Amino acid sequence: MASFKKYRVDGGKFSLASIDPADSPFLEGDEQAQRDRLEQLAGELDDLQNLLHAEGRRKVLLVLQGMDTSGKDGTIRWVFSRTSPLGVRVTAFKAPNDDERARDYLWRCHANVPRSGEIMVWNRSHYEDVLVPWVEGWIDKAELRRRYAQIQDFERLLAETGTVVVKCMLHISKKVQRERLQARIDEPAKRWKFQRSDLDVRKKWAAYQHAYEQALAATSSRHAPWHVIPADSKRHRNLMIAQLLVKTLRGMELAVPPADPSLDGLVVV
Amino acid sequence: MASFKKYRVDGGKFSLASIDPADSPFLEGDEQAQRDRLEQLAGELDDLQNLLHAEGRRKVLLVLQGMDTSGKDGTIRWVFSRTSPLGVRVTAFKAPNDDERARDYLWRCHANVPRSGEIMVWNRSHYEDVLVPWVEGWIDKAELRRRYAQIQDFERLLAETGTVVVKCMLHISKKVQRERLQARIDEPAKRWKFQRSDLDVRKKWAAYQHAYEQALAATSSRHAPWHVIPADSKRHRNLMIAQLLVKTLRGMELAVPPADPSLDGLVVV
Repeated sequence: MASFKKYRVDGGKFSLASIDPADSPFLEGDEQAQRDRLEQLAGELDDLQNLLHAEGRRKVLLVLQGMDTSGKDGTIRWVFSRTSPLGVRVTAFKAPNDDERARDYLWRCHANVPRSGEIMVWNRSHYEDVLVPWVEGWIDKAELRRRYAQIQDFERLLAETGTVVVKCMLHISKKVQRERLQARIDEPAKRWKFQRSDLDVRKKWAAYQHAYEQALAATSSRHAPWHVIPADSKRHRNLMIAQLLVKTLRGMELAVPPADPSLDGLVVV
Repeated sequence: MASFKKYRVDGGKFSLASIDPADSPFLEGDEQAQRDRLEQLAGELDDLQNLLHAEGRRKVLLVLQGMDTSGKDGTIRWVFSRTSPLGVRVTAFKAPNDDERARDYLWRCHANVPRSGEIMVWNRSHYEDVLVPWVEGWIDKAELRRRYAQIQDFERLLAETGTVVVKCMLHISKKVQRERLQARIDEPAKRWKFQRSDLDVRKKWAAYQHAYEQALAATSSRHAPWHVIPADSKRHRNLMIAQLLVKTLRGMELAVPPADPSLDGLVVV
């Protein structure tokens, strides 16, 4: 198996540009072998989720961040293609509504943390609040640093109360984004996915890349590390994230609770 | 394909006892053929859910009711084995907590109706509030009738605002429940699923069957019909519900929204 080390953000001197979005270390064998592998990982993830539920104590939070078309939806569709909706929930965070803006930016996130035994996936997250306002110039450097610290505190709370936090930045090239946006325009059946505002954000590509680099370096911690996922190849993205989740859940050493001996010999009538 | 007609509750003179929990009209061919069929239906359900999401207008609510061990969790696991957690959400209703008891019994249900484009599955539902309190003697006949009417009003609101409501009663025999509860006791790896309170409810089997019969007859309507699902066979239960959902979603004539012509020729730079 390929190593995650190179893609794990280890603080200080992290450079996003040093990671090629076209990398594909987790793509092994031919296309059929890769499909089979994903199917196998998705099945294993389902088994591990069942154990997480049986244990009923800890939780898993998967945070997905990335530019438009980086494949957050596709990741959820394929990585969890074999997992029951009983045990996996998704929260998609959009631009905050009035109710959400009337509270601090972590309020809506806290309201959607996973329950015991559950895997929760955040499609975008509290990280939008250190990306968008910074790129748009709504907050200054001091506020940005304050938010980094608040986010670290929040994630430490989650970790210390039984949540394993996995954070993935889906890393695509500007060229691949152009191709994917263009396809949404050119293919009539895909056009409903296209939003003109995506083009405005695209114009600020470099500023967003820089904001990501800063945010990832500032908030990758031992209890809530960031991984950069080369995502120009959709299959690579899916395989790498599935592999990372399986590895993480295996590392939790999940087990069915011990059988209550007081029920020995009980007969149902 | 087998017909749903016999299993659809059509009001007045409905008899639950006349439906054999061991019936299996939707089981065709050998075991492998049945597994393949479920896999195919699960895949088709995924395609239909994608269209529901693309349309972004209507919603689907699947209500699952049934005695303990009737297979509500298993149904969700297998029928939605190919559907993304992006488009299917599950709400499990347990005994109401303090917050919920402080409101009317439909409050927590209304808070969990599906969003546009979404399939929501209720694992138990507002129907618990016309089953448990009635069997336990906490409400009288007048209050029971009032609740039937309130439930019909609530479901009409959902239907009139774009929600297709599918209600399934998972119908098992008392004998099969005994076998399944006993297995939870006898198999150490399953024992964590067993609750002693299940045995107390089991003692009131006949009263619950009668309460179900009354509730189904009183609340099956054109806009929110009840189906009784013979569920002694798990595979039959899964196949019948998958088939019912596929038929229902096909009947909605879902389609991708028309392509916005104002985007013709737009080039992404």
